[in-house]
Amino acid sequence: MDLSSFITSLATSFVIFVFLMILFAWLSTKPGNAVIYYPNRILKGMDPWEGSSSKTRNPFAWIREAFSSSEQDVIAMSGVDSAVYFVFLGTVFGIFLISGIVLLPILLPVAFTEHNPKAVDSTGKNAFNDLDKLSMAHIKEQGSRLFASAFACYWVSFTTYFLLWKAYKHVSDMRAAALMTPEVRAEQFAILVRDIPSSADGLSRKQQIDTYFKNIYPERFYKSLVVTDNKEVSKIHDELVLCKKKLTRAETIKSMNPEGPSPTHKTGFLGLLGKKVDSIEYYNKKITELTPKLDAAQKVTLKEKQLASAVVFFTDRVTAAAAAQCIHDRMVDTWTSINAPEPRQIIWTNLPKTFYAREIRQYVVYFIVFLTICFYLIPIGLISAFTTLPNLKKLLPFLKSILDQKTIRTVLGAYLPQIALLVFLALLPKFLLFLSKAEGIPSVSHVERAASGKYFYFSVFNVFIGVTIGGTLFESFKDIQKNPDSIFDKLATSLPGNATFFLTFVALKFFVGYGLELSRLIPLIIFHLKRKYLCKTETDIKEAWTPGNLGYATKIPNDMLIFTIVICYSVIAPLIIPFGAIYFGLGWLVFRNQVLKVYVPSYESYGKMWPHMHVRIVASLFLFQLTMVGYFGVKKFLYTPIIFPLPIITLIFTFVCRKKFYRFFESSALEVMSRDLKETPNMEVVYRSFIPPCLDNEKGEDEQFVDPDAHVQVKNAFAQAAVPGGNV
Amino acid sequence: MDLSSFITSLATSFVIFVFLMILFAWLSTKPGNAVIYYPNRILKGMDPWEGSSSKTRNPFAWIREAFSSSEQDVIAMSGVDSAVYFVFLGTVFGIFLISGIVLLPILLPVAFTEHNPKAVDSTGKNAFNDLDKLSMAHIKEQGSRLFASAFACYWVSFTTYFLLWKAYKHVSDMRAAALMTPEVRAEQFAILVRDIPSSADGLSRKQQIDTYFKNIYPERFYKSLVVTDNKEVSKIHDELVLCKKKLTRAETIKSMNPEGPSPTHKTGFLGLLGKKVDSIEYYNKKITELTPKLDAAQKVTLKEKQLASAVVFFTDRVTAAAAAQCIHDRMVDTWTSINAPEPRQIIWTNLPKTFYAREIRQYVVYFIVFLTICFYLIPIGLISAFTTLPNLKKLLPFLKSILDQKTIRTVLGAYLPQIALLVFLALLPKFLLFLSKAEGIPSVSHVERAASGKYFYFSVFNVFIGVTIGGTLFESFKDIQKNPDSIFDKLATSLPGNATFFLTFVALKFFVGYGLELSRLIPLIIFHLKRKYLCKTETDIKEAWTPGNLGYATKIPNDMLIFTIVICYSVIAPLIIPFGAIYFGLGWLVFRNQVLKVYVPSYESYGKMWPHMHVRIVASLFLFQLTMVGYFGVKKFLYTPIIFPLPIITLIFTFVCRKKFYRFFESSALEVMSRDLKETPNMEVVYRSFIPPCLDNEKGEDEQFVDPDAHVQVKNAFAQAAVPGGNV
Repeated sequence: MDLSSFITSLATSFVIFVFLMILFAWLSTKPGNAVIYYPNRILKGMDPWEGSSSKTRNPFAWIREAFSSSEQDVIAMSGVDSAVYFVFLGTVFGIFLISGIVLLPILLPVAFTEHNPKAVDSTGKNAFNDLDKLSMAHIKEQGSRLFASAFACYWVSFTTYFLLWKAYKHVSDMRAAALMTPEVRAEQFAILVRDIPSSADGLSRKQQIDTYFKNIYPERFYKSLVVTDNKEVSKIHDELVLCKKKLTRAETIKSMNPEGPSPTHKTGFLGLLGKKVDSIEYYNKKITELTPKLDAAQKVTLKEKQLASAVVFFTDRVTAAAAAQCIHDRMVDTWTSINAPEPRQIIWTNLPKTFYAREIRQYVVYFIVFLTICFYLIPIGLISAFTTLPNLKKLLPFLKSILDQKTIRTVLGAYLPQIALLVFLALLPKFLLFLSKAEGIPSVSHVERAASGKYFYFSVFNVFIGVTIGGTLFESFKDIQKNPDSIFDKLATSLPGNATFFLTFVALKFFVGYGLELSRLIPLIIFHLKRKYLCKTETDIKEAWTPGNLGYATKIPNDMLIFTIVICYSVIAPLIIPFGAIYFGLGWLVFRNQVLKVYVPSYESYGKMWPHMHVRIVASLFLFQLTMVGYFGVKKFLYTPIIFPLPIITLIFTFVCRKKFYRFFESSALEVMSRDLKETPNMEVVYRSFIPPCLDNEKGEDEQFVDPDAHVQVKNAFAQAAVPGGNV
Repeated sequence: MDLSSFITSLATSFVIFVFLMILFAWLSTKPGNAVIYYPNRILKGMDPWEGSSSKTRNPFAWIREAFSSSEQDVIAMSGVDSAVYFVFLGTVFGIFLISGIVLLPILLPVAFTEHNPKAVDSTGKNAFNDLDKLSMAHIKEQGSRLFASAFACYWVSFTTYFLLWKAYKHVSDMRAAALMTPEVRAEQFAILVRDIPSSADGLSRKQQIDTYFKNIYPERFYKSLVVTDNKEVSKIHDELVLCKKKLTRAETIKSMNPEGPSPTHKTGFLGLLGKKVDSIEYYNKKITELTPKLDAAQKVTLKEKQLASAVVFFTDRVTAAAAAQCIHDRMVDTWTSINAPEPRQIIWTNLPKTFYAREIRQYVVYFIVFLTICFYLIPIGLISAFTTLPNLKKLLPFLKSILDQKTIRTVLGAYLPQIALLVFLALLPKFLLFLSKAEGIPSVSHVERAASGKYFYFSVFNVFIGVTIGGTLFESFKDIQKNPDSIFDKLATSLPGNATFFLTFVALKFFVGYGLELSRLIPLIIFHLKRKYLCKTETDIKEAWTPGNLGYATKIPNDMLIFTIVICYSVIAPLIIPFGAIYFGLGWLVFRNQVLKVYVPSYESYGKMWPHMHVRIVASLFLFQLTMVGYFGVKKFLYTPIIFPLPIITLIFTFVCRKKFYRFFESSALEVMSRDLKETPNMEVVYRSFIPPCLDNEKGEDEQFVDPDAHVQVKNAFAQAAVPGGNV
């Protein structure tokens, strides 16, 4: 890629970005769009514009607000997980900032002023374009200027160690502060017990569990909630909820036009076939039918469908935290206990999976992921080989007239491979989430962490390694066939060339990506369309704008990929560093706004994502160091051994961090959990918050099951405390 | 080795064994030897001969007694660790018994009746002697008789899985039963806390620790005992104890001959130089000097030499067990807690070592062990090369006349290499124990486990692999140089030849080893010599016969080596199986006697050795399976893949066992610890049992330190509860 197409690429991206920013500034002041640009604030019952009305508002106020917001604001609005994400963005931004400040003034002149006699390729042309002259490729083999590069490796590495260490400490404190909250949080009083063996002495599950834990914790055990097979009851419950929703809708339509005909619908497939019925009448009848059916199913489920796992409640936090860390039975694969996830993020269907079923599922999933990572290499290779302009013209001759126009050619030349890559990567996350859930993981946050890990491995292997090594080898396949030794020379010259590809990739990501993110064009359009044509009731409208999660499962691996790319090229092609810094700096700013005002997190894991981010940052650093060892070798640098200590230091750093911090992110430290609570917890409320909605009796009766096995004493008073999304 | 020298070897061993047995039967009935043959019974205050007097006693009664003793007897007399050792012996005996019953009748005829056209070596002689004809080497390459060997591999493997599974369950139950004892055991109420960070708010260690744990366990925390730097006080204490002992001795000498001159000694080096003094006077003066010095040193130590670790006591067992498994602080490398070892086996000097010091020491020690294992390969190789008769004659010509006598030649030919090996192996254990202690491990039992592991790796790598592969390659070095492909043929024929070497090695081990063990000839002689010439007081005599530990650190790796050898050759040379069975069967019998009557265990770890034994048995099985895969390959067996599943099954078996059982051997399961106690524990006694003897105030005063920092409230009443060996 030459300089002009590089500049075009940057310029186009920037124009799009500016356009989207202006669009955002304009759209966000319209009161009708408040639900799109401020949903988090609205859902929390706050004024979207804080004092100033939408008219008088400075369209760039969001920047000031983002900068002036503190970490506490983020935690208050969006939880610890979001705050941890900002620590990540801030740390990585810091790494690139500090690296850039030192590396750019040193490495760029060192490379540019070099007179490299080899700077002529086999065809006799100067092999270096203007951009490549700024890279390490331009430095002579065995040259003493390579010492500057070696120093740069140390600088980048130690900056990373230092900032990561500080960040880990900071996140650890943040997690501790969140865990020691004086508020009563239901999940801090509960543990999840799985793999309960079948009882020998004819006790019911409920009795067995209660006896077992009452024996071990005679004073602190409160109650247990046996997990039941909710498949059937959940089906009825969902149907009932749907009917009620449709009834409200039909009634709303009716009330808007009381003289008109009653709303009707067809009962068959998708409302297109079957008998035409009066909707209000039909749904009312259906609800009357389903309600007693649900009651009966609830009773049957509670009594007869008890499974081998349970949520066990304790009257204080320290005991619950300790119980989650201890082995309870001499057979370690029975009565396994972990911290209970928040009720809203429990995946009930995964709870009864047994110990070995989980292990086997895990290995099977790992194997499938491994296959996915390997087999995707082939399409990625093909894409990077075919999406060059000459290839496109050859393959799709009808495009020739378009492709021959200069501007289009420049733009396409700059973007085509990148767009192909982005589209390609968009296919995967759902599949990985599905796989992670199939492992038998009991909470949504854990599933997202697992999927995020898989996605990271996928992107690094395929995008980074695939494009870099694969692209190089593919391009110069024939030369290498003739002269296998030339592979190192090829790598030495083409590695920095790939850097330009990634440079535009990063720029595209942040200019267009963040522009779209901030302006929320797509949700905005969808919302307005829905509101106009589909939404009938208030609930419908609210559903149409409810923003959902930030989506860490794909967000973080994508950021990590950028980090990996930038750090790996940071010394080879230092020009990439500012782009990395802008990506993470701008990301910080844009997402600060989004997190404070838009996204509503659907769970809280108290920063458990951090160790994964940390270890992947370190892994990228390690990859960078290995790349550099290799690249110095390719450059025939005699003093290459002076950077051998770096990978070793990285391993030691990983080891120490893991030993010092990691276990606290798995379990809750007792000292942290021993802080005083604001009030004595109402254990009944704690307990009820874990009852899945489909088992929660919504009738007004204060019914108590007389059966001693019944584990849920349903009281209507607490029905409101239950959370949505029972059977995830 | 030919048949005659093999038979000679066996016969000699057997004669020695019979001789030692008769000696034992005769010596053990002499009342004067009771302290050598029945010390454990005597120390437990039991009658050595149980009813019948020494005269009327059947000299072979010990066999009946060994067989009739139950596991409960063993646990009562010698603890769970000894009982676990018998489970090990029993299991391995079972493996060889069941394997032998099936394999011998199948494999021996299959091999012996084979007509192998290759059974002629390069010199034209029949390459097979009579013993080798019974081995797998005699089976034709690619022959269908190899299916019998493949079946044998499966039989041996599944027998091992089955018996190991049963044994693990059994040991797990035994451990649980021992842990849930209704007796009060001090260590079950305590945890060991290390890596206590320096206190920020100016508290003393003692206050800091108390505040910390009182906060987390407000109701269950009892007290803490801060570990102090006892170097100085321990030196004074030891000196004082020695003086007292010597005083008693001088007084005894005086009292035996009241008219004679007072005993005197010289004060200089080893009592050989310096001024001659009256012993009684001298020691009395020294004791009067040292006693206040000890008092002062104790006070200084308690107050000023508090270190960053402590033993923390709880009022119930479940809390202590839970506390040992939990992380207490958000910085996981601080306030680390583990189950407290028994007071008698705490290595006090290792307690203050910090987290990373321990980690670093561990890796350094591993590296040293690795070097040891590798460098010992060289001497072992030399030994097995030089200790052949022709070599000896060449090297030591003056031995020629002796070596030319036929009987001596046969005996030496049979034994020389083995004896060299045995002597060689005797040098190592002390060094490995020292290394393991240097790792910073806090308890003696753990040090022995660690040393045992290192010794196992050493023996397997050096003795087994070294002799087998090394010996083969060394012998046929020239042939291989000429024709490198012949290496496989060489291995194929010489592997079974090595089996004969190991056969005599095993036989020597059990006949001579167990004979010496049972007859206790060496301790007996040493005891009688000491009693006659050195012992003056009762204490001296008791010290002279006190038997000590069984010595698991060397015993178990030795047994494991035999197991590895026998199982690896079990299919190649099935004749070794009965020898293995006899080794472990006879071992069970002999050690049943020794454990019940002789050895006094110096610690109890509740069977924590078992997982190590288990995993090493499985590792040996794995080695066997790999050897067989290799040997089938050497035999050019087309269906070799039919035994590929075996190593995989072994890995799965290991994985499941680890997941199911292992953690219970690391930590105490809460359900097990929640059983009721016989009585409410007297926490003061529990606490005092952990005070190192050098800090225990032996004066009659009921002194309480008024200083709030003082962590040891010394009361004489409990001085007896303290155990010997404070500063190990």
